Amino acid sequence: MANIEIMSVGNELLIGKTLNTNAQWMAKRLTTLGLNVRRITTVSDDVDEISAAVNEAISRKPDFLITTGGLGPTFDDKTLEGIAKALNAPLELNEEASKMVEEKYKTYAQERGLEKIELTPARVKMARLPKGAKPLPNPVGTAPGVIIKHQKATVVSLPGVPSEMEAIFEKSLEPLLKKLAGKATFFEASLGVSGMMESELAPIIDKVMHDNPYVYIKSHPRGQEGIPHIEIHLSTTAEDSATAKNRVSRAIVQITETIQTKGGKITRFKAK
Amino acid sequence: MANIEIMSVGNELLIGKTLNTNAQWMAKRLTTLGLNVRRITTVSDDVDEISAAVNEAISRKPDFLITTGGLGPTFDDKTLEGIAKALNAPLELNEEASKMVEEKYKTYAQERGLEKIELTPARVKMARLPKGAKPLPNPVGTAPGVIIKHQKATVVSLPGVPSEMEAIFEKSLEPLLKKLAGKATFFEASLGVSGMMESELAPIIDKVMHDNPYVYIKSHPRGQEGIPHIEIHLSTTAEDSATAKNRVSRAIVQITETIQTKGGKITRFKAK
Repeated sequence: MANIEIMSVGNELLIGKTLNTNAQWMAKRLTTLGLNVRRITTVSDDVDEISAAVNEAISRKPDFLITTGGLGPTFDDKTLEGIAKALNAPLELNEEASKMVEEKYKTYAQERGLEKIELTPARVKMARLPKGAKPLPNPVGTAPGVIIKHQKATVVSLPGVPSEMEAIFEKSLEPLLKKLAGKATFFEASLGVSGMMESELAPIIDKVMHDNPYVYIKSHPRGQEGIPHIEIHLSTTAEDSATAKNRVSRAIVQITETIQTKGGKITRFKAK
Repeated sequence: MANIEIMSVGNELLIGKTLNTNAQWMAKRLTTLGLNVRRITTVSDDVDEISAAVNEAISRKPDFLITTGGLGPTFDDKTLEGIAKALNAPLELNEEASKMVEEKYKTYAQERGLEKIELTPARVKMARLPKGAKPLPNPVGTAPGVIIKHQKATVVSLPGVPSEMEAIFEKSLEPLLKKLAGKATFFEASLGVSGMMESELAPIIDKVMHDNPYVYIKSHPRGQEGIPHIEIHLSTTAEDSATAKNRVSRAIVQITETIQTKGGKITRFKAK
C-alpha cells in the first residue's frame, strides 16, 4: 500500500495556540482515498528543524510527503527554504509561479481601485521555489502550492490557511493521489458495546484480529473501566471495495457473536 | 531553554478519525510552564513504528519525551512495548503498578456488587513496564502512567483518554516540569490589523523581529490577501516573568507605531 507522510509547519501548533485540524482533514482524505498515512510530524518555523524533519521523512521512503504551512510572504514562512536545504535544491525564481503571484496582485489592485500593487521582495518570495519544483495554482489565496520529486518521494507543500490548503489539495493533488491509490479502498465500521469492561473485550479483540489479519480493530473506552461503554472501531484498506467490505463484515459478525455470548450488548452499529 | 517532545500514538489519529486535542492541550500547558515544545510526532499502534520514533526523538536529546495513548489492556495498546524495544529495557511486572491495577479492580468489583474481578492477562498487562520504569498513579482510570529515565531524557507515557492524560499530567508530571522550567516564563500578546495586506506587513515584522531578537512574531491572515485582516501574534519565553513582559511590550510598541505610520489600523489587542 502507498505510504504518505504529513508534515505540519508552524510555531502556533507547538505552543498549543492552534489545533491541528489541517492534519486531521488531510489524514481523513488520504485514508478515504485508500492510502496509508504513516506519520504526522509537527515542526517549528525554523529552517534547520524543517530541513532535518524533511530528511528524516525522506529516509523512510514515503510515496508522498505533504507539508502544510509556511508558504506566505513573511519572514517566518520558511517551509520552502527548509525543503530547499534538505533536497539540496536551492530556491530560485520560478517563472510560472511568478506569473501566478503577479496575476493575484493585479486582481487585488483592481478590487481596491488601485492602478497597481508593487511586487515587493516579500511578494516575490512566494514565487521562489526549490530548483526543479513546479507551482500548484492557489484558487482562493496568493501563495501557490509547490510540488517537487526527490528520489522515490513526491514532496508537496500546501499553505496553512485551511481554505487554501483544501482548495489546492482538491484541485491539483487529489488526481495524483487517486492514480497512486488505484482501486485501493478504505472501509470502516464501529460498534458500541455496553456491559463489558475494555479488559474483558481485550482477549476477544485479540482473537478476532488474529482470525482477520487485514482488519485493524481498536477499542476506545467512552465510559470508565468501572462503568464501561466501549466503542470498537474496525477498518481495513484493501485492493478493491468488495474485498474491503467483505473483510470488515466477516470480522463484525465474529466479534458481535462473541460479545453477545459473553453477556455484552451491542448498543450501536455504523458502517460506511 | 528546556526542550520537550510530544509523541501521540494511535491509528485513529492517522486515519483522521480523531482530532489530536491531547497534543494541543499538552503543548499549551508545557509552553505556559516556560518550556519549549520542539516537535510533535504521531505514529501508529505498531511496535516497530513506536520504537523507531522513540529512538529518533531520543537522538534529538530532549529533556522530556511525553507520549500519549496505547497504555490500555488491549492487544493494540503497544506504547510500552515500543518504548521497551527502543530503550532496550524489556517489559516486566512492576510490583507498584501491579498493586495500583489490583486496587482499581477491587473498587470496580465493589461498585458492581461482585465478590472480585479476576486479574486476567489483559489486566496484568497494564502493570508490565519497561525495566527501570516507575508507575504514575491514574486518579480517574485504570492504566497507570509510566516514567523512565534514559540518557539525558525522561520518557513519560500517559493514557490517550483525555481525562486520564490530564489528571496524571497535573498530579505527577507538572511538579517535575515546573522544577525543570525554574523561573522561565512564557508571555504572549496579539494584535488585529486591518487596512494592510500580509505582504505589506512582512517587512515591518522582519524589522521588529530583527530589533527584538528574542520575540517571536507571526502573522496569521484571517481575511484574504485582497480584503485583508491580519492577526499578529507575539510571544517569548524568558528567564523570568518581568523580562518576558518587557520584551513583548517593547516589540508591541514598535510594531504598532510602524503599522499606524504606514496607514494600518489596530482593531484588537490582547496580552496575557
